[in-house]
Amino acid sequence: MRAILKKGPHPGLEISQVNIPSIKHDEVLTKVLAASICGTDLHIYKWNRWAQERIKHFPTITGHEFSGRIADIGQGVSGFSVGDYVSSDSHIVCGECLQCRIGQQHVCSNLKIMGIDRDGCFAEYVAVPSKVVWKNDDSLPPEIASVQDPLGNAVYCTLVEPVTGKSVIIIGDGPIGLFSAGIARVSGAGWIGLIGHHASRMDAAKVMGADATFHGDEEGLISTIMNITGGVGVDVVLEMSGSEKGLEQGLSLLRKGGRLSAFGLFPQPVSIDITNRIIFKGITLYGINGRILFDTWYRMHNLLKSGRLDISHVITHKLPFDEFEKGFALLMERPKKAIKVVLML
Amino acid sequence: MRAILKKGPHPGLEISQVNIPSIKHDEVLTKVLAASICGTDLHIYKWNRWAQERIKHFPTITGHEFSGRIADIGQGVSGFSVGDYVSSDSHIVCGECLQCRIGQQHVCSNLKIMGIDRDGCFAEYVAVPSKVVWKNDDSLPPEIASVQDPLGNAVYCTLVEPVTGKSVIIIGDGPIGLFSAGIARVSGAGWIGLIGHHASRMDAAKVMGADATFHGDEEGLISTIMNITGGVGVDVVLEMSGSEKGLEQGLSLLRKGGRLSAFGLFPQPVSIDITNRIIFKGITLYGINGRILFDTWYRMHNLLKSGRLDISHVITHKLPFDEFEKGFALLMERPKKAIKVVLML
Amino acid sequence: MRAILKKGPHPGLEISQVNIPSIKHDEVLTKVLAASICGTDLHIYKWNRWAQERIKHFPTITGHEFSGRIADIGQGVSGFSVGDYVSSDSHIVCGECLQCRIGQQHVCSNLKIMGIDRDGCFAEYVAVPSKVVWKNDDSLPPEIASVQDPLGNAVYCTLVEPVTGKSVIIIGDGPIGLFSAGIARVSGAGWIGLIGHHASRMDAAKVMGADATFHGDEEGLISTIMNITGGVGVDVVLEMSGSEKGLEQGLSLLRKGGRLSAFGLFPQPVSIDITNRIIFKGITLYGINGRILFDTWYRMHNLLKSGRLDISHVITHKLPFDEFEKGFALLMERPKKAIKVVLML
Amino acid sequence: MRAILKKGPHPGLEISQVNIPSIKHDEVLTKVLAASICGTDLHIYKWNRWAQERIKHFPTITGHEFSGRIADIGQGVSGFSVGDYVSSDSHIVCGECLQCRIGQQHVCSNLKIMGIDRDGCFAEYVAVPSKVVWKNDDSLPPEIASVQDPLGNAVYCTLVEPVTGKSVIIIGDGPIGLFSAGIARVSGAGWIGLIGHHASRMDAAKVMGADATFHGDEEGLISTIMNITGGVGVDVVLEMSGSEKGLEQGLSLLRKGGRLSAFGLFPQPVSIDITNRIIFKGITLYGINGRILFDTWYRMHNLLKSGRLDISHVITHKLPFDEFEKGFALLMERPKKAIKVVLML
Repeated sequence: MRAILKKGPHPGLEISQVNIPSIKHDEVLTKVLAASICGTDLHIYKWNRWAQERIKHFPTITGHEFSGRIADIGQGVSGFSVGDYVSSDSHIVCGECLQCRIGQQHVCSNLKIMGIDRDGCFAEYVAVPSKVVWKNDDSLPPEIASVQDPLGNAVYCTLVEPVTGKSVIIIGDGPIGLFSAGIARVSGAGWIGLIGHHASRMDAAKVMGADATFHGDEEGLISTIMNITGGVGVDVVLEMSGSEKGLEQGLSLLRKGGRLSAFGLFPQPVSIDITNRIIFKGITLYGINGRILFDTWYRMHNLLKSGRLDISHVITHKLPFDEFEKGFALLMERPKKAIKVVLML
Repeated sequence: MRAILKKGPHPGLEISQVNIPSIKHDEVLTKVLAASICGTDLHIYKWNRWAQERIKHFPTITGHEFSGRIADIGQGVSGFSVGDYVSSDSHIVCGECLQCRIGQQHVCSNLKIMGIDRDGCFAEYVAVPSKVVWKNDDSLPPEIASVQDPLGNAVYCTLVEPVTGKSVIIIGDGPIGLFSAGIARVSGAGWIGLIGHHASRMDAAKVMGADATFHGDEEGLISTIMNITGGVGVDVVLEMSGSEKGLEQGLSLLRKGGRLSAFGLFPQPVSIDITNRIIFKGITLYGINGRILFDTWYRMHNLLKSGRLDISHVITHKLPFDEFEKGFALLMERPKKAIKVVLML
Repeated sequence: MRAILKKGPHPGLEISQVNIPSIKHDEVLTKVLAASICGTDLHIYKWNRWAQERIKHFPTITGHEFSGRIADIGQGVSGFSVGDYVSSDSHIVCGECLQCRIGQQHVCSNLKIMGIDRDGCFAEYVAVPSKVVWKNDDSLPPEIASVQDPLGNAVYCTLVEPVTGKSVIIIGDGPIGLFSAGIARVSGAGWIGLIGHHASRMDAAKVMGADATFHGDEEGLISTIMNITGGVGVDVVLEMSGSEKGLEQGLSLLRKGGRLSAFGLFPQPVSIDITNRIIFKGITLYGINGRILFDTWYRMHNLLKSGRLDISHVITHKLPFDEFEKGFALLMERPKKAIKVVLML
Repeated sequence: MRAILKKGPHPGLEISQVNIPSIKHDEVLTKVLAASICGTDLHIYKWNRWAQERIKHFPTITGHEFSGRIADIGQGVSGFSVGDYVSSDSHIVCGECLQCRIGQQHVCSNLKIMGIDRDGCFAEYVAVPSKVVWKNDDSLPPEIASVQDPLGNAVYCTLVEPVTGKSVIIIGDGPIGLFSAGIARVSGAGWIGLIGHHASRMDAAKVMGADATFHGDEEGLISTIMNITGGVGVDVVLEMSGSEKGLEQGLSLLRKGGRLSAFGLFPQPVSIDITNRIIFKGITLYGINGRILFDTWYRMHNLLKSGRLDISHVITHKLPFDEFEKGFALLMERPKKAIKVVLML
């Protein structure tokens, strides 16, 4: 089969012919219909510092966001059939650690990630343990079903506490920030702002449901937004920038007694005024990683199936699988135009 | 001033001239702009059994749903000014009992209700303790601001746990059931059904956001809805009928591990199969009364101010205050056409 | 091996030689060290109406509470080793239904119960799927480890919301009621009452930590307890009697805004004044079944391992396995003296 | 009356005769029975940088922890009587801001603190708005009732999520850390460790209920505690040191999916590895300030009244009011011996 491989410790990816993976007792083999490119895949392509430290085995099939149909089933798998239309969580959980046993699989102590720690889904077939596989509704187009992994990040991050009737500011205009704008909107958030840096993405944020967007370097940004909130601050901050400045903006804007979800990864430690920003404000701060298995998936499934949530605007490009180089190029282009690129098989 | 009075222990209400109420140290005097008629007011009008047992003092100014502008302020009141555009909770809480002190004012042990235990708002002016007064956003039309008391019931009942991405069935097609359909919809509920008995109200439920409506006597109702939910049942039941049959339908439809909010008042005790309906299903059941002060009001405020929630379709009639008899007649008419009638001053 | 069997649709149980069970791919074989007798086992022994309707296959090895050591392991099992000291949940969950997937395995749609739907643990060996097996701390005596299944009911029921600094009334003096008294006590409940019917058990309740016990037929019971709570009522009710009278007592005693956990099974539907007892009181009612997998087990494990919770007083008898008839006789004796009887292998 | 005053912007405090305070409409006058010295009072005494920036008016009566009996009542006060045995929250909340209205008075936007922003309780009488006054149980000795303000910090911090059956590490050996050890113990925490720096306080921690204490500079501290928790880490961290090192220890020790309560005030911003410590661990972090009005007080009241929680060991000294200088000296002495010093009137 064709697969997009990281062949060695250097930039770039290559498409090659490899064997169809064999499946273990508890796995399903899925014929991939669509696979989407994540920021992590860009890191691996560019071979940045993070990638150099993280990826140790070559060749590895990359990619961890997909939808497909089950082509084969391990002997120990029940609850799935050949032909089922599925996606999966990219986090392969162990099922045995304390966290997995007490309902916190999203912070499994022995987490393996598809396309990083084991072969991924940028291929005609991918093998996945059934415990992380989710059946999609037949009505979902493959490219929509493919992006549920990052969409699930946004669902978990946004809805870790209710947003209905609350004001929300999203810091960051990446795909997950834009998804979050949409989720906050269909969940009845009262006012939704987004702070970003790219004009095309802030336009997309408005289509997704943001009431207002702001450039992160805008002068007087904090006081502008504080005024919008009547001087009180916002109820909810979704930190999706992974930048010290973004976090500081979020903590400034958060009202006393509010909630901050931290999702964006910071390349290094950051300085925080805990006394004034966290303690005296009496805030709750959630570290958000992955998706709640499968509460997040269930709620996302219902949002998509019912048509409440329309994310099609975020998927800017669908390309044939073989044109993956073009997809990566689109995502690295400046100024940014592409948001989410899906490879179709 | 003009006021609509219950003058004695007999059916009917009368409009009369009475003195403008004097205000206590902790009260505000509000010039009423709009006052809406509740089912409770109908009971008082008809002088049914409940009303006969509950209303003890005459004359009493009726009515407990309103919006207005503050005309005068008690000496001990701070945080409000003459001219403020306000509504209030109809539940006058004591502020001193255990519940009031630990954040459960909605179940105050010494609750007094406007228009029942003390003079109400069907009048040109009404006096209310500032502790239950809420400032409305200027953008709200008076008739919308007036119905926040029952709308708040629906907000509390629907959102006592999140509904985003969950399926919801509403049992009952009264105004609060219809409001709940709207709230569930703007909160991102995945599928919303409503079981009612009146064609015009079920039409309104669809306008508010229900995906499907069902007549409560429809044959095969339970299996029809179970099929819609893939045999699993619904995640959330909002019981707003106060009928044993409605409750039984709700408990049948609720999935294992689901949540039921009981809001509709039952005229007498009902029989429940606790073992199979509650324990083996592992459900959570909330008794819902009033509105959380003021968390419910805050979230409702944001839903209305932002325009996310449009309840105008439920307000079928605006009438001049002096035509209150027509308003009551409209609400007693069969088949039901009027839903919510607001008297304008 | 020796096993205690229900051989056919008639009263009594018999000890016989049967084959050691073979294990499936996902199962472990456990050599039983201790197995305790549950009220359900008594129903099966007596062959009451419930048992006649529920038990369909003969012979079935009875029993569902045990501790033991793993003697063999299926090929697909990881996370366990031969020799591990374990117990298991008696509820064999499917792992595939919606509830299992979203963290509500305790209300699995396809639940099988050991000793009822499949062979149980009143035997030298028992086969159990590893997904419901829990590793015990080595410090626990086998008889203590054996009763974790009912103890877990009490842990879940009592702690479904925090009890620290709250008043608690337990309705029912069965073993799980007594366990709950102990759990409430070590969890810092402020005042703990228990309503029961058997003198020896109410004595045991005091040893476990109840501050006061009451006979269920005591005159003026409600007003006595209301006085103790300063007229407010108790914060938490644990309904463990399964009787209409007990439930009515619990709902009367519960304060406005309080919480009731319903655990005792009612043989038939009961009448409830929902309006006054549930809605106007604004209570939350939880249906409690099983144990949260494995959050309940984890917290119970820590309570036992640390020595905080001492349940030894509830285990009144340890008998050799072959003397099971004596164990059943002890539990059926009147007046009640035995509380929990453990068979030792 | 006698009062301990901060007379001007310089170190030290002075006892002087001043007028008994007059009370406003919504206030009660309390005759002080006991008043305890807080770390904040030491800052004011020493006139450190924080105090220089924070205290602006002179003279101010210091002190904010007390118990007493009501001597007079404002005209607008209800729910209290002359002679009532009371304490109060040191945080005087406005009752009007968003936070106050939606049940988050502990983060009131217009907070005034007794003994800092207004006259405090180191005096024969103190005037306090009734909205922050709490009736003590008559059984509490005045010195115990006096320290409920800091004890309430510990109750809120420890119990913001349940600790029953969970492991807890407390960072910091001040009085609130010691209180927390006691609260965790009576709440059924499974293992309780405390990291401190003073031998006498770590001894006290064991009396209060810690299973183990550790010196913060102990070599191999992290791996020692990780080993105790089987390599998993602790479920709950209570950060009460306000030091960067303490926070780093807490974040290292917290298990994936755990909870950290941040209470200790940091003199300056600190550096945090959010990605690895908060996001990838999926933790929840609470900023803790004050006490939940009055949920915290209610639960504390029940813990004290029932005798479950014994804090007498933390109150090392009771001194006559006039010997306040000795009390401050005791608390500044090195090595630390005094923990909590109460002035008796």
